[in-house]
Amino acid sequence: MHILVIGAGGMLGVKLVKRLVREAAVGGTAISRITRFDAVATPEIAAGFAIETVTGDLSAVGTPEALIARRPDMIFHLAAIVSGEAEKDFEKGYRINLAATQALLEAIRVQPDYRPKLIFTSSIAVFGAPFHDAIGDEFFTTPLTSYGTQKAIAELLLNDYTRRGFLDGIALRMPTVCVRPGKPNLAASGFFSNIIREPLVGLPAVLPVSDQVRHWHASPRAAVGFLVQAGAMDLTVMGSRRTLTLPGLSCTVAEQIEALRSVAGNAAVELIRREPDETIMKIVSGWPQNFTPDRAHALGFRAEATFEDIIRVHIEDELTPA
Amino acid sequence: MHILVIGAGGMLGVKLVKRLVREAAVGGTAISRITRFDAVATPEIAAGFAIETVTGDLSAVGTPEALIARRPDMIFHLAAIVSGEAEKDFEKGYRINLAATQALLEAIRVQPDYRPKLIFTSSIAVFGAPFHDAIGDEFFTTPLTSYGTQKAIAELLLNDYTRRGFLDGIALRMPTVCVRPGKPNLAASGFFSNIIREPLVGLPAVLPVSDQVRHWHASPRAAVGFLVQAGAMDLTVMGSRRTLTLPGLSCTVAEQIEALRSVAGNAAVELIRREPDETIMKIVSGWPQNFTPDRAHALGFRAEATFEDIIRVHIEDELTPA
Repeated sequence: MHILVIGAGGMLGVKLVKRLVREAAVGGTAISRITRFDAVATPEIAAGFAIETVTGDLSAVGTPEALIARRPDMIFHLAAIVSGEAEKDFEKGYRINLAATQALLEAIRVQPDYRPKLIFTSSIAVFGAPFHDAIGDEFFTTPLTSYGTQKAIAELLLNDYTRRGFLDGIALRMPTVCVRPGKPNLAASGFFSNIIREPLVGLPAVLPVSDQVRHWHASPRAAVGFLVQAGAMDLTVMGSRRTLTLPGLSCTVAEQIEALRSVAGNAAVELIRREPDETIMKIVSGWPQNFTPDRAHALGFRAEATFEDIIRVHIEDELTPA
Repeated sequence: MHILVIGAGGMLGVKLVKRLVREAAVGGTAISRITRFDAVATPEIAAGFAIETVTGDLSAVGTPEALIARRPDMIFHLAAIVSGEAEKDFEKGYRINLAATQALLEAIRVQPDYRPKLIFTSSIAVFGAPFHDAIGDEFFTTPLTSYGTQKAIAELLLNDYTRRGFLDGIALRMPTVCVRPGKPNLAASGFFSNIIREPLVGLPAVLPVSDQVRHWHASPRAAVGFLVQAGAMDLTVMGSRRTLTLPGLSCTVAEQIEALRSVAGNAAVELIRREPDETIMKIVSGWPQNFTPDRAHALGFRAEATFEDIIRVHIEDELTPA
């Protein structure tokens, strides 16, 4: 099986390729080849099969066509302009998140005798406030960002292209990935990870919102697990509804902090500095807080059950020498 | 006020322009000019203000830009490739219903110091079975046709372009328009109108589905009323959720037939010939049957209350000499 990973240089992409290389199979089918694609350089990796790396701009004319001409059997499409940038640069967001995704689907459609499996990462950003207490599987999409709009549109396209028989797709609405490794960044959601990741290594972190803010989390390991599980699944069980809200852990910032205290002690918690930021509070107030992802549960998808588990995954995967 | 009607040659477009000409105002603002656009010729009409007619292909490069260069204050976008044709010709459906609509929004966005009101006709085809008994305002969109997919995507785009301040839009999910004037056509939904329109003038009609099929109807007059009412509304009351499921009448084919009997007698009903058609039955089984359009009701939108009313509207508007 030949797997194409688009967005292989991103945080999830790198972890996904590592796992695919380690397991050398998806759902019992051996991997013979991986093509990694990204706009940025991807780290070197050794595998028991061929790994090719292509760097380019997915929105450039001919790029999706050239990737699809390789006729991968399974495609993970993780590439996206993130929320903040898509809001700041309207044209760039639509060019990458919508037009390039549509061009990829079209390249697949016009390829003769070809119907690959396509696993697409969508986002809970397809939802926009006001919400009920917990968002059910049949709740409507009213995104409050261009990024969320582009993800919701890509979901609709993937469903239609699947229904028409051009591909065999699934769109996975990822929870917020936490603890995100790396340096603090300027994403409005960054603090959810910062207040855990930084204190764990003795560094201070800023909390810009109230302790009572509730949000929906899963670890990077769980997120990669969702991708691989979808890759292994017989997608016909999804019927004509190929979009899935994934499980996550709904917890408040206060619960995150108590989990940090139980795992790393008071000294870690004391490194969190409260600096309320009206702008971030306003953005976060429009985000989903909780879901009832019954369908994903019934299909066997599982996220962490406690925030302590999420912290332990971070310690094992990021802070423990291999 | 300058009004642009895109799709002015269609059934609703012709009726809308007639009403605008008759009333010479929308929401108390006088109309100074109407531009009619369609791919097909539009009938001549005399008005107390300028009416210009442009014929062309909305998906041709430069067409949306040329229309928007006229800087209309209010735009009714009714143009679409209908469901059956969009299913048969995948590329044409996406070209007109998605790409051309997107090009129209882009032409508006890049026009300097410009923020027109845009009234877009969406459809209950954004929904796809299985359903609950009645579809609420927060139910998700899972279209089972490319047409429904294209309408759902256009709704999302209109919402995002409105949120970003490029236009002031509303997407109206129209019920099935019944009784549709004109000749019987090959649309799968045609029989809902055929079984009323034809017997009223002494002609036979074919009923291809069971009497128990339930569907969601409004008259052409009500549909035009929805458009004009949306044009007159202060759309800021919609907040960031600019898509509205409109009221309709939920009734069974049996109820339609009894309404025909009460208005036109047994002789009319006897002109209905039952010829079950498996293909049409299968298509219709995926369609919505009933809604609870609470939001539109609260905003004052009203459809007919009985199917007798719908028949009487048809008799007044289509069978009564002016």
